[in-house]
Amino acid sequence: MRARTTSFTTERAGAGSTFVDRWCLERIARSLDGADLRLQLWDGHSIATARTAPAATIRIGDRSTLFSLLMRPELEFGEAYAAGRLEVDGPLVAALETIARTLARSRRPERVRLGPTTETDSRHNVHAHYDLGNEFYRLWLDEAMLYTCAYFEAPDMSLEAAQRAKLDHVCRKLRLQPGETVIEAGCGWGALALHMAREYGVTVRAYNISANQLAYAREQAARQGLSDRVTFVDGDYRSITGRADAFVSVGMLEHVGPRNYEDLGRVIDQALDRDHGRGLLHFIGRNAPMTLNPWIRRRVFPGAHPPSLGEVLPPVLEARQLSVTDIENLRLHYARTLDHWLQRFDRHADAIGSMFDDVFVRTWRLYLAGSQAAFLAGDMQLFQVTFGRRFDNGQPWTRRDLYEAAPGA
Amino acid sequence: MRARTTSFTTERAGAGSTFVDRWCLERIARSLDGADLRLQLWDGHSIATARTAPAATIRIGDRSTLFSLLMRPELEFGEAYAAGRLEVDGPLVAALETIARTLARSRRPERVRLGPTTETDSRHNVHAHYDLGNEFYRLWLDEAMLYTCAYFEAPDMSLEAAQRAKLDHVCRKLRLQPGETVIEAGCGWGALALHMAREYGVTVRAYNISANQLAYAREQAARQGLSDRVTFVDGDYRSITGRADAFVSVGMLEHVGPRNYEDLGRVIDQALDRDHGRGLLHFIGRNAPMTLNPWIRRRVFPGAHPPSLGEVLPPVLEARQLSVTDIENLRLHYARTLDHWLQRFDRHADAIGSMFDDVFVRTWRLYLAGSQAAFLAGDMQLFQVTFGRRFDNGQPWTRRDLYEAAPGA
Repeated sequence: MRARTTSFTTERAGAGSTFVDRWCLERIARSLDGADLRLQLWDGHSIATARTAPAATIRIGDRSTLFSLLMRPELEFGEAYAAGRLEVDGPLVAALETIARTLARSRRPERVRLGPTTETDSRHNVHAHYDLGNEFYRLWLDEAMLYTCAYFEAPDMSLEAAQRAKLDHVCRKLRLQPGETVIEAGCGWGALALHMAREYGVTVRAYNISANQLAYAREQAARQGLSDRVTFVDGDYRSITGRADAFVSVGMLEHVGPRNYEDLGRVIDQALDRDHGRGLLHFIGRNAPMTLNPWIRRRVFPGAHPPSLGEVLPPVLEARQLSVTDIENLRLHYARTLDHWLQRFDRHADAIGSMFDDVFVRTWRLYLAGSQAAFLAGDMQLFQVTFGRRFDNGQPWTRRDLYEAAPGA
Repeated sequence: MRARTTSFTTERAGAGSTFVDRWCLERIARSLDGADLRLQLWDGHSIATARTAPAATIRIGDRSTLFSLLMRPELEFGEAYAAGRLEVDGPLVAALETIARTLARSRRPERVRLGPTTETDSRHNVHAHYDLGNEFYRLWLDEAMLYTCAYFEAPDMSLEAAQRAKLDHVCRKLRLQPGETVIEAGCGWGALALHMAREYGVTVRAYNISANQLAYAREQAARQGLSDRVTFVDGDYRSITGRADAFVSVGMLEHVGPRNYEDLGRVIDQALDRDHGRGLLHFIGRNAPMTLNPWIRRRVFPGAHPPSLGEVLPPVLEARQLSVTDIENLRLHYARTLDHWLQRFDRHADAIGSMFDDVFVRTWRLYLAGSQAAFLAGDMQLFQVTFGRRFDNGQPWTRRDLYEAAPGA
């Protein structure tokens, strides 16, 4: 791919770095002290931040990129990489992981200030990411189009098998029984809703505000003869009506925003059967409140916020006295999922470059690699929070059944 | 036992209830509307709050008890029951469970305001409960003197087996390896510390501020030939020094108090190995912040506060960027544990009455029965929170190993 990058520039041919340039590089290197890297300017001048042989070299293409990196590193790294003004020689994920680990040492929990999100905001945000075209996502997701963390029940299983295992893991945690009803908030391309109906005999009402995803999901329902048992509704969580035996949301909470968590809690409370309703929230989270990387927010996931458990539980569950029965952290599963996606993405980079452009390819490569690095570095978590009604004594005695049942049983 | 109750009184023989008395009873009955009960005054006048045949009758022995119950029901119920001014005819746990379920309908999450607790306060509080005499506890706890929720791996296992299963469940969650070191905060009579050293080959430093428990634990260590690998230290969590591979605390957090959670988080952070340290907090909790029943705080557990996850996670773990890997809610296991304890307690009620007095017997019976009812009614939870260092990628791929390993393996 590097050959196709059109915009990688160097300072005027032959122009060496100045004393000021080197001082800037020194400052940047100091903030990455201990990272397994070498930082290099356009004229070859470089500084190693590693104590051993660096795993990768970050090449900074010009002076203005250097200055921007010093001023706003979190935003500019992505901007410069996408534009080809910054290159990573060596393994990209490893380079990003060592950066994440190094920067995490000095990060502290933050006071996150984000405004409320209206459904119009959400539609805009969701459209920007999920409506890039089903053809694009088909190139690198699994066959069922699952764009959330898989569950590698066995370490070496394929992405396809791990995505099916994830669906079953979620369904078992929800203790779905034939004939029950399920409400799903944010259903992607419909794989979970269709799986629940097909394999567990439930009736599903699934909500989504991505037009492309809804069209695909409805087509799949028709093709699989499940249209009578799975309804795909054009609306976000605020549109949910009626009650169901179970509520599930996989990969939506990240888009809700902390200011809307109380609303979400009320929606869940109103949607759940009063006696035996139970639910599951599957979301990318954090060990502590932190704002999302500004470049990811600008270029990849507008409006997104991966929350800590402490941000989610009080407004969403505690305010409604819903009872947490189980929380699992699957962050290494997401790292492996992203590894699969990134490999497939890179295999189709030329095709994707033709569908969009090189900047898009580099943006998405950095986003996928950076996400994998964040999960490997413990900077991001993947939480599955299972909950139920406080009076309900019907839960299984232990979690052993999650590890005994045959898939789809 | 009822025959030995000395203080059960009735209003002056023959004195009937007045209009005001009946109005008071009506008010109390309204607050318990729907509970499966009959409320009865000293002269036989009664009101059923149940829609069907009541499971139990609560008999109120005199006017002053009636008035106190109306004014401060949460405190006075226990006071009157302990003194024999109030009787429950019928199954005690079922009566308390229906009360808990009914009152929970109108309870909302509260702003809990509790002051900080010094080590001197803690010593006083702990002494008041845990130093009642090892002879007393030996009468109704299991052979290993475990005074925390057991884990009924199989539904019909004995209390002894379930307590051993709990120890193994905790040890497996901690992934203990032979030769590792463990710090335990609040070790009771030492059963977990001794089990970890004996069955998992680790070295343990266990902290406690109950003199009776420490003496017993040290004697057990000597008897089992484990004194070289288990050190029992007279001090609370604030006395912890040094680092270890694992930190564990079973049934102590309830006594720490929210104002001290940040301190506890700092202690845990400083005690844990920087690279692969992991920990487990096992505690009685709530679905939402609530103050503990005032009678329990006055007569049974001074200074205690069972917290919600939202109260615990931010100050204890998130502030230190410790990563939650697993949370399990074992509330029904605690209900069953209490059922065993209560049965044993009642079998030894005469002996306990001789050691103390009838008020003590009735106080403890109500506390044990009320706790069982609270877990059955979903009013109390039992959380096991497992956590680790954010950079540590050494955790098992799934939780399957928790359900496969042979006990003590």
